[in-house]
Amino acid sequence: MSTLLLRQVAIDTYKENVAYLHRDCKLYRSEGFQALNKIEIHHEGNGQSIVALLNIVDDDAITAPGELGLCEQAFKQFGGIEGVAVRIAHAPVPKSIKAVHRKIGGASLSREDYQGIATDIAANRYSKIEIAAFLVASCEIGLERDEVLYLTQAMIETGRRLDWDEPLVVDKHCIGGLPGNRTTMLVVPIVAAHGMLIPKTSSRAITSPAGTADTMEVLARVELSPNELHEIVRSQRACLGWGGTAGLAPVDDILISVERPLLMDSPGQMVASILSKKLAAGATHLIIDIPIGKTAKVRDRSSALVLRKLFEYVGDHLGLNLEVIITDGRQPIGKGIGPVLEARDVMHVLENDPRAPLDLREKSLQLAGRILEFDPDMRGGQGYTTARDILDSGRALEKMQAIIDAQGRNPTPPKLGRLRQDIVADQSGYVCTIDNLQLARIASLAGAPRDKGAGIDLYKKLGDPVQAGESLYAIFAEFSADFDFAKESAEKDSAYLIGEQYIDERY
Amino acid sequence: MSTLLLRQVAIDTYKENVAYLHRDCKLYRSEGFQALNKIEIHHEGNGQSIVALLNIVDDDAITAPGELGLCEQAFKQFGGIEGVAVRIAHAPVPKSIKAVHRKIGGASLSREDYQGIATDIAANRYSKIEIAAFLVASCEIGLERDEVLYLTQAMIETGRRLDWDEPLVVDKHCIGGLPGNRTTMLVVPIVAAHGMLIPKTSSRAITSPAGTADTMEVLARVELSPNELHEIVRSQRACLGWGGTAGLAPVDDILISVERPLLMDSPGQMVASILSKKLAAGATHLIIDIPIGKTAKVRDRSSALVLRKLFEYVGDHLGLNLEVIITDGRQPIGKGIGPVLEARDVMHVLENDPRAPLDLREKSLQLAGRILEFDPDMRGGQGYTTARDILDSGRALEKMQAIIDAQGRNPTPPKLGRLRQDIVADQSGYVCTIDNLQLARIASLAGAPRDKGAGIDLYKKLGDPVQAGESLYAIFAEFSADFDFAKESAEKDSAYLIGEQYIDERY
Repeated sequence: MSTLLLRQVAIDTYKENVAYLHRDCKLYRSEGFQALNKIEIHHEGNGQSIVALLNIVDDDAITAPGELGLCEQAFKQFGGIEGVAVRIAHAPVPKSIKAVHRKIGGASLSREDYQGIATDIAANRYSKIEIAAFLVASCEIGLERDEVLYLTQAMIETGRRLDWDEPLVVDKHCIGGLPGNRTTMLVVPIVAAHGMLIPKTSSRAITSPAGTADTMEVLARVELSPNELHEIVRSQRACLGWGGTAGLAPVDDILISVERPLLMDSPGQMVASILSKKLAAGATHLIIDIPIGKTAKVRDRSSALVLRKLFEYVGDHLGLNLEVIITDGRQPIGKGIGPVLEARDVMHVLENDPRAPLDLREKSLQLAGRILEFDPDMRGGQGYTTARDILDSGRALEKMQAIIDAQGRNPTPPKLGRLRQDIVADQSGYVCTIDNLQLARIASLAGAPRDKGAGIDLYKKLGDPVQAGESLYAIFAEFSADFDFAKESAEKDSAYLIGEQYIDERY
Repeated sequence: MSTLLLRQVAIDTYKENVAYLHRDCKLYRSEGFQALNKIEIHHEGNGQSIVALLNIVDDDAITAPGELGLCEQAFKQFGGIEGVAVRIAHAPVPKSIKAVHRKIGGASLSREDYQGIATDIAANRYSKIEIAAFLVASCEIGLERDEVLYLTQAMIETGRRLDWDEPLVVDKHCIGGLPGNRTTMLVVPIVAAHGMLIPKTSSRAITSPAGTADTMEVLARVELSPNELHEIVRSQRACLGWGGTAGLAPVDDILISVERPLLMDSPGQMVASILSKKLAAGATHLIIDIPIGKTAKVRDRSSALVLRKLFEYVGDHLGLNLEVIITDGRQPIGKGIGPVLEARDVMHVLENDPRAPLDLREKSLQLAGRILEFDPDMRGGQGYTTARDILDSGRALEKMQAIIDAQGRNPTPPKLGRLRQDIVADQSGYVCTIDNLQLARIASLAGAPRDKGAGIDLYKKLGDPVQAGESLYAIFAEFSADFDFAKESAEKDSAYLIGEQYIDERY
């Protein structure tokens, strides 16, 4: 079979390898290739092979006959040199697809099955639809807890794993769903001020109005190279960076890229996703925060307990010291929603400013206290008060300033959005419920986290008395189109229910 | 929001709409678009909207900032004029996805649910991964028979439907899996010679060594425009065309484009697929042939009965006169496998040539006989003998020649492949089993149907006595690379089992 000359096609297809072949290329018809076929591409020079989805091109400017085009990510994976000779063939069906078909048929899979699946996914041998089939099958039938363990392990083994060469490397994770809730930016400086190692990387918002990385970016640079990150952690015992570049548990990123558009979120996949990332990042001790609330991700205590046991089972079998804390998820934590407003709340707490939201302070101290008790020298029950001392004394603030300086302080911190609209109570009474999802939607419509100054500032929380006409919260935005969308949504549904009597129905 | 100028990107992405946006386009970052996001594109001129998957471009030659590129099929759907103004927005999640999530959760869906799903799929609002989720969910949980009915109906309603304006429009369909088996090319001329209307369109091979359209193409043109097809059917009462251009039940084609790479094939999806296509094509009376064999698509009698009842249930509720015939699928039908060899067998039967394979003749007469009995004037039990009379008298041959001439006789019929290798028995005895799948694989490797003259000619069938060293079959190929692959596969596994005694274990 004759060779083709490799060329880059400057198209970004995210996590899908796409190859381009001209329709007049003699290989196209003679070999019976079709658009959307999976092909295997062999590099004549170094013997490497990758698998890609085939698109057929009718424009020589994109890919000429005799050439094989590759999208940017595939081109990079494949050496990144144009003009080298490659051969193509129909890609074999990945071996582990048989296991996926058994899962679709209702079977439990073995450790070897999950190793095979993760290896094939990491090598880009699965198409998006094959990944979707795997996810739907493991969502519907469900995964046995041993299957979650095997999947987690397989996802760790198919990527890089950091080793900090210390016996105690701590981390925390919250099962999302609550706006505000920026406890990470308080827990990290408290714990690091105590001397513990907490190399924290966080995500940007996907569907929420802000991720920890978005909020931290108000104060400092978060896109750090692996080398920078390592140096900062060594000098500060901590960092607050963005986790997007680390290449840890790459299978998890690939699964998420399909899960997210499918709006799927099964407990087994969630546990495997979180624990594989944390273990690959080198964590030895981990606190998991599961907020419960009607509009949080976990809606009732029994679901939270199922999830807790699954975390504990997998964590224990992988040698991770893991504790799960179930918290109140009935309303946002803190006052601000959106990067600038959340960063303000965080700094208020660190500065012991009287305007600091008490709930954010309290929850952060609880979490930090539990982490501090991972320290073998900490007397049982002393974690919380130690955390409080560190915060009240200003040592946490000092540590935060040092981390900000180490990462690179933002010289022009973004400001609050210039457009403001207050949403007022339509009757007097007490705040009975707050809808997290609707508040997140309004803040997103206002432009968060794209516009860092956009978001919501809350003036009333659960149980607070309100007068008709009094402001419940203010919406902030930068652009009038966003502002109008957010106002319109808040007018339809303010997210607040005001009643005559407030009953504290904590989980 | 500002507009973009439409432009075609000459890339064929098969049944997936893809849009291209330059990374420096101001809309890209400001609106938070990402690669693989689904976007909705609005045509400013005619108010049309389509949904497409987004790819990000770094090359002005493909799509410049300020432009929106569309792949070929999306560009065609969308008016096909460059330079018109379009607006883009994040595509809303298709409404019917909620029903898919209920299906994943194990629920049965309603008629309205299936209408919603088919409407959204027909409008290209589903991504491939959403389609995969729907297919896996309906494969795993299974579809209730009413759900199959609703899905079939919804697939018919979301496409064109032919109306032949006659009370009796017949069709036949075989649940694949057997090489050879070209009964359609015999049934059609017999039935049409009797005067029945049989506007038959067939598929090309997907994974098999030949589809009816591939074999008919040896004799005549099969890619007919809707107008041509209509005229031929009016003049000949029949046609033997390729069904690829008709646009009937388009949702079925989209589902198949995902089912096939997933190697999925659930009974519910199969019944809905076949019946929606036949009803959309205007059939009023239909014969379904289900071959049973260990290496056929349906492996045992009980699976065949389940499938039969499902066909009958859905057919009855949609006003289709449907009969299911269960046939012997333990070995190929006829002698030739591959377009040229199969066309030879068909012509031998029509010409009453002594070399005609008896099994192909018998099976075709049985099927044609059953179809003839759909004629209200046909006396019960007379179908078979009438079919035989039509064949023996030469009227079927005459009709076939007329159909070939109407479609356009192939002036240069392809010849048998120039390379030949006989595969011989390694011991004396009787042919005990023949593996359909392995024979199909060998014929495909030899080049069928890409090379029309490639394939296999069988000299021994089940129960035949053989001597060690006697030829079981010959492989024919055009190109030596294909020839070597086919020989190698046949040497590893000839597909024949020779034993001392043959036991006729028909289903």
